[in-house]
Amino acid sequence: MKKDSVKIVTIGGGSSYTPELIEGFIKRYDTLPVRELWLVDIEAGRDKLETVGALAKRMVEKAGVPMKIVLSYDRREALKDADFVTTQMRIGRLPARILDERIPLSHGMIGQETNGAGGMFKAFRTIPVILDIVKDIQELCPNAWLINFTNPAGMVTEAILRHTNFKKTIGLCNVPVNMVAGFAKMLGVEEKDVTMEIQGVNHFIFATDVFVNGESRFQELLDKYAHLSAEDTIQMKNFVSLPYSPAFIEGLGAIPCPYHNYYFFTKEQLEEELEQFKTGTVRGEVVSETEKELFELYSHEELAEKPKQLEMRGGAKYSDAACNLIQSIYNDTGDIQYVNVRNNGTILDLPADSAVEVACRITADGPKPLATGELKLPISGYVHMIKAFERMTIEAAVSGDRNLAVAALNLNPLCPSDELANIVVDELLEAHKEYLPQFFK
Amino acid sequence: MKKDSVKIVTIGGGSSYTPELIEGFIKRYDTLPVRELWLVDIEAGRDKLETVGALAKRMVEKAGVPMKIVLSYDRREALKDADFVTTQMRIGRLPARILDERIPLSHGMIGQETNGAGGMFKAFRTIPVILDIVKDIQELCPNAWLINFTNPAGMVTEAILRHTNFKKTIGLCNVPVNMVAGFAKMLGVEEKDVTMEIQGVNHFIFATDVFVNGESRFQELLDKYAHLSAEDTIQMKNFVSLPYSPAFIEGLGAIPCPYHNYYFFTKEQLEEELEQFKTGTVRGEVVSETEKELFELYSHEELAEKPKQLEMRGGAKYSDAACNLIQSIYNDTGDIQYVNVRNNGTILDLPADSAVEVACRITADGPKPLATGELKLPISGYVHMIKAFERMTIEAAVSGDRNLAVAALNLNPLCPSDELANIVVDELLEAHKEYLPQFFK
Amino acid sequence: MKKDSVKIVTIGGGSSYTPELIEGFIKRYDTLPVRELWLVDIEAGRDKLETVGALAKRMVEKAGVPMKIVLSYDRREALKDADFVTTQMRIGRLPARILDERIPLSHGMIGQETNGAGGMFKAFRTIPVILDIVKDIQELCPNAWLINFTNPAGMVTEAILRHTNFKKTIGLCNVPVNMVAGFAKMLGVEEKDVTMEIQGVNHFIFATDVFVNGESRFQELLDKYAHLSAEDTIQMKNFVSLPYSPAFIEGLGAIPCPYHNYYFFTKEQLEEELEQFKTGTVRGEVVSETEKELFELYSHEELAEKPKQLEMRGGAKYSDAACNLIQSIYNDTGDIQYVNVRNNGTILDLPADSAVEVACRITADGPKPLATGELKLPISGYVHMIKAFERMTIEAAVSGDRNLAVAALNLNPLCPSDELANIVVDELLEAHKEYLPQFFK
Amino acid sequence: MKKDSVKIVTIGGGSSYTPELIEGFIKRYDTLPVRELWLVDIEAGRDKLETVGALAKRMVEKAGVPMKIVLSYDRREALKDADFVTTQMRIGRLPARILDERIPLSHGMIGQETNGAGGMFKAFRTIPVILDIVKDIQELCPNAWLINFTNPAGMVTEAILRHTNFKKTIGLCNVPVNMVAGFAKMLGVEEKDVTMEIQGVNHFIFATDVFVNGESRFQELLDKYAHLSAEDTIQMKNFVSLPYSPAFIEGLGAIPCPYHNYYFFTKEQLEEELEQFKTGTVRGEVVSETEKELFELYSHEELAEKPKQLEMRGGAKYSDAACNLIQSIYNDTGDIQYVNVRNNGTILDLPADSAVEVACRITADGPKPLATGELKLPISGYVHMIKAFERMTIEAAVSGDRNLAVAALNLNPLCPSDELANIVVDELLEAHKEYLPQFFK
Repeated sequence: MKKDSVKIVTIGGGSSYTPELIEGFIKRYDTLPVRELWLVDIEAGRDKLETVGALAKRMVEKAGVPMKIVLSYDRREALKDADFVTTQMRIGRLPARILDERIPLSHGMIGQETNGAGGMFKAFRTIPVILDIVKDIQELCPNAWLINFTNPAGMVTEAILRHTNFKKTIGLCNVPVNMVAGFAKMLGVEEKDVTMEIQGVNHFIFATDVFVNGESRFQELLDKYAHLSAEDTIQMKNFVSLPYSPAFIEGLGAIPCPYHNYYFFTKEQLEEELEQFKTGTVRGEVVSETEKELFELYSHEELAEKPKQLEMRGGAKYSDAACNLIQSIYNDTGDIQYVNVRNNGTILDLPADSAVEVACRITADGPKPLATGELKLPISGYVHMIKAFERMTIEAAVSGDRNLAVAALNLNPLCPSDELANIVVDELLEAHKEYLPQFFK
Repeated sequence: MKKDSVKIVTIGGGSSYTPELIEGFIKRYDTLPVRELWLVDIEAGRDKLETVGALAKRMVEKAGVPMKIVLSYDRREALKDADFVTTQMRIGRLPARILDERIPLSHGMIGQETNGAGGMFKAFRTIPVILDIVKDIQELCPNAWLINFTNPAGMVTEAILRHTNFKKTIGLCNVPVNMVAGFAKMLGVEEKDVTMEIQGVNHFIFATDVFVNGESRFQELLDKYAHLSAEDTIQMKNFVSLPYSPAFIEGLGAIPCPYHNYYFFTKEQLEEELEQFKTGTVRGEVVSETEKELFELYSHEELAEKPKQLEMRGGAKYSDAACNLIQSIYNDTGDIQYVNVRNNGTILDLPADSAVEVACRITADGPKPLATGELKLPISGYVHMIKAFERMTIEAAVSGDRNLAVAALNLNPLCPSDELANIVVDELLEAHKEYLPQFFK
Repeated sequence: MKKDSVKIVTIGGGSSYTPELIEGFIKRYDTLPVRELWLVDIEAGRDKLETVGALAKRMVEKAGVPMKIVLSYDRREALKDADFVTTQMRIGRLPARILDERIPLSHGMIGQETNGAGGMFKAFRTIPVILDIVKDIQELCPNAWLINFTNPAGMVTEAILRHTNFKKTIGLCNVPVNMVAGFAKMLGVEEKDVTMEIQGVNHFIFATDVFVNGESRFQELLDKYAHLSAEDTIQMKNFVSLPYSPAFIEGLGAIPCPYHNYYFFTKEQLEEELEQFKTGTVRGEVVSETEKELFELYSHEELAEKPKQLEMRGGAKYSDAACNLIQSIYNDTGDIQYVNVRNNGTILDLPADSAVEVACRITADGPKPLATGELKLPISGYVHMIKAFERMTIEAAVSGDRNLAVAALNLNPLCPSDELANIVVDELLEAHKEYLPQFFK
Repeated sequence: MKKDSVKIVTIGGGSSYTPELIEGFIKRYDTLPVRELWLVDIEAGRDKLETVGALAKRMVEKAGVPMKIVLSYDRREALKDADFVTTQMRIGRLPARILDERIPLSHGMIGQETNGAGGMFKAFRTIPVILDIVKDIQELCPNAWLINFTNPAGMVTEAILRHTNFKKTIGLCNVPVNMVAGFAKMLGVEEKDVTMEIQGVNHFIFATDVFVNGESRFQELLDKYAHLSAEDTIQMKNFVSLPYSPAFIEGLGAIPCPYHNYYFFTKEQLEEELEQFKTGTVRGEVVSETEKELFELYSHEELAEKPKQLEMRGGAKYSDAACNLIQSIYNDTGDIQYVNVRNNGTILDLPADSAVEVACRITADGPKPLATGELKLPISGYVHMIKAFERMTIEAAVSGDRNLAVAALNLNPLCPSDELANIVVDELLEAHKEYLPQFFK
């Protein structure tokens, strides 16, 4: 039944991440024969797509694999008969991200792009577009898998699950693989031998068990994690959070992900971001600079591989995770990966039709999540809170209900007050007006 | 089957609240013939009990009802054949409460007695004692109803439900009746015509529907509540929270209780408490003063009724609520009251064996909660979070696990940091060492 | 808010039950001032409606109450501004019922009208019509309460809950009130002092607790029920099932309703029905005879009250139950009645959006079910099985899927084999073709 | 961490199945180095154990693997430091089985050993013994895995889960692997390429999805299954049930397991068994004969391998399944096997702490079930019914409550009446009195 080759469509193909994706497909060509890769973008992104597309073609040619790169500004033409669709678009591009970050910070509120106000507005801009893409997929390539790595990946996945009847959607994030890498390092074992049980939602997961070659080493790891030295913390900064007290970690009985810094070290995170705000170096601004440099590099005609500098862009393992996922589906490998899927009882006390980020066995029929039972008591309150925030945000994104947006933001632990929730929602609505017609009916 | 008369045992009988309870039983004597009222206290409270007991006897005599008041320092003797047991004891008395409040405040953390650090330590001191009382009840008066209005009333109820097999326990609070009073005022109707649907846990409930003579007036009320004038807010300060934005209330679709100030107006509440901290007027200190004055009053031999000043003590409707509840059980009235009971699916997405505070039909077989379905989405995250805090606190109270205590406190939204969670837990453990043997094994 | 008077619309007004309904409204006029009662029927029922309508008018006149009786063949005209709509129609009239009973019996299968094959086909005929009625209500009298006592009342209620967004629907049955009457007799107390906790679905309920003046007398009652004499069984034949063994009842820990005879005494019930089949006296045939006689009686111009003979019609307390329900809603009485409503967690392990038959507090905002927790273990399997049968039947009624109909019937414990399920479904489809267009697309 | 070699203890080692187990371990020696295999039995089984043990030793010697076979009549000595414990004992041996079958049949009731009355009494005899074994394991080899293939395997597993705190227990059955084999044949593919999603409990599972190399071929398979020829049915008699109608299978949307014959073709199955009853050839009787012949064979000193005849014993793949499971745990293979484990939300609407038989990923940390969501509607009623029967049976097995036993049996669809439930329970209690002290206190 397995096709001899696959057609992949990447929406937001002009992204600076694309070379990593290309490299990933080239590396895996033997087991994942990508016949056609369509890079799709909007007219406004023509310059970037042309640059990235040219590099992609040079990379493929140099590698000597028979992969056809097609650049397209016509999403519907591209989608026809696709086997996999990946989405990595950014509605409003980096300037919108900078607003998502700077407007909240201008009022002393964390404005990070997937949690709190920033993530909320990224959801508001992205969800209507993704729902349109799904409509096209259902018409033009109904058997394709949609692999979304546009943030907020969890909310985007849940929006599709709740507002369409399309089932073949998977949300992807690089946080879990970074956690695996960190745990492997702490235990002195190889990454490939480590698997986790995780409970939570995108950017808000906890490791609740960790296995080396299938045997639980969790208690040992938890004890180590509870007593990290300052040095450890610095060395593994992509993975370890700011230092928690031993008592907290032991009482929690679960290992937080790096994004928990925002919730458990709000003061420290806010101080750092306010400094960036002052110096014009919020994440979106830094990334804009990096991107400029990357596109400068990409345009060199002699360049025919992914430049090292891309790895500094952040989110480096994202494209690799996407390639792995596609390869495992194509080959029915049955390995464990960590993705956002319909809960379906995997976390017993979250709604069955919500998206959760959990360990799944990857098969040709998609990810099959391993049951985890009820949320461990200490993490249950917080996970429910973030899930409620996500669900309210999705409803507001679809309905354009400002009241719901204000309530959702005020209920988010990163928002310090009702008053600020109103101010920040209004300023962000105004700033992104162009992309938020649902709120301006 | 109904007995001709009832025997009531009040544990913590030396409390300054007792005269209100006496007044309540006297007023209701026609429908609730209390034959014997045993006021029980510990030796250390002999002075207070003697004073209160003498007043109680004068009140009964003046009222001309044949109610026998018995003072006792022997709990087991008192419990024999009781029909109702009420608990209003305070382990460590008011000095312990002052520590619960001042120690957290000394580190800039809210130390209120039922939420956050203060409530946690009140639970730690109270739960082991209440579990012992339940053991005595099961032996000496197994058919009695235990009506607890010792705070934290929700946690105490859940501790009994989870750690004993005694079913006839009800937790009582005056917040719901105050909400009913406030809603009646806002709608210009009589209190007796108002009923509510509420969802939540003790000191953390939301009105999700409000009826006047059975017809829902909720949307109208919500709109009014969303647009309260500053004057309204001041006039109804026992009931209305600090002013929320219209958008938040409309987006929430539910009306918070006054205790939500602690969570939604943390900054304002903290400022006020820090001021009290400085001036030696935290609630426990104020109440200590009031109590001194009350006991001074109580000791006047000519006094034979509840003095007006008691109403300023706070929590004024507590005893009234207790009398109403006992009267409704005794007479199988079938009226609606708001109490803490085993959830049993009433709030569909909270654990069946947790305590919740909900509207119940009061019958001779106890409170029968009315199903409310799932938590309304906007309130679901927060309610889960507080429930998780409660459950962790109960487990720590029973096991004496300091790690769990630290984790529970850090996960409470009133706690600003992991570091402070550790410091405050340690200082409170040390301060209350005498009453917390489970933590010092 | 309460209206001074109410308009009631009765669909299927030409039913022989109507005089009881009229009597009920007359009796309650002081507390339930029915200004207008519209009796609606289809043209094919004109004769019956005219006869019943004339009797109704004579009854009202004799009683001297200012209740206007309006006969109508235009449902939409009738519904305008109604306060309550009652439905008691029978699609295909009694001849259809006779087919529902005789066709299964001709193959040796019980063909009772609410369980098994008969009930399934009554659902198939009724559900599409009731969904149309709901559409009219939503347009013409959206605030009206729809009180359905057309069988199968539970499935009809669930069909409305799942396939429309209309909430104000209540299904009504006389089984629970007959159980209350029986229990009162067994305990030697008055009916009005007895309340029950029940778990189950329409025609498949179990009493799981029974209270006299609010005190549980369940264990005593269960013991009595477990040891009924043959004489008791005969005397209370409307209520007591065939005699169960003491061990079964004690092990069950719940008291079955009379309809459980079909499931627990299938052999005996089948033998009785096969005898009726041979003698032309299946229930539908008997009722046809009775109806003829009743209409003969009704047409006597001197008759101006409900004739005694109607009580032999069976289902006698139905109309009374309907009048009580309407009166309690109108007056917000808060009394306990047993109706079919959205589950909403009342029975914790049945779907929240299914209909269940449970004890409810009746208010002006409708029935508020009292939480019952999980199904008692011994009854849980059977209740789930019947609920699955109901849900499959509803889906088949809406979709016209014959396979689903066959599977549903074969899964019903009254159906002896897959082969017969196919035969009986096909014969009934053919026999009722006229009323089942959804199966003949 | 993986040990170099493993110690396995087989309780009921004198079983005629043992040679298959030995063969299984020999075949897998390279990947599963069994250093010691202890065959444990009771004194009464000394003859059989000596015979089987001698054969086992000859088999090992011939194979030339360094596996030590130890015969023991001291369970506690044997368990010390075991890595895996398998249980295949039969309390009361085959004569008890014959009673389990013949007594119900003497009253016209199916008496099969895992469903209905026979299975119930096997549970009554086995559960107290298995709970004792678990106590020993917890003391003597707490890290061992207990792999139970004593029937009723599902109830035994649930009894351990509910009545001990031992987690490392797995129930095993050969039905799922036989279904895989049958599906592979029907689709013309290899067994190793087929995986299933199943929902249900032991001997009552339904295939709800079937994959070939990970791609769902379920609809195709369902259609084939719905239209099997009579010849197919005969050819695959170990796997295919009696022929269902196409409509039933399509409406069910799931493929039953062979044991469903008992429920869906009760009449046919009963007729067959009554014939066997008359001729003295009920299963237990046939197996007794076979066993005699097998032991005759086993005692030949020249025999040093598993005789072909054992395959006719029935349940042939049981031991193979056990070896596979142990091998996968030992090697952390991550392959899919179908075992009885704690539900934990895998089947969303069955209790979390019940045992279910589902597809699991087998790891060094045991089986990790793949979430399946809610029971498919058509199978939900029946599965709940059998689960309720199982849970009542377990409670009766532990408590010795005859009433519960009668109620459980009467609620089982194989029991035709309450009267027979009482008779059959009493006769079986009497017949097995020696092994059922809990019922004769």
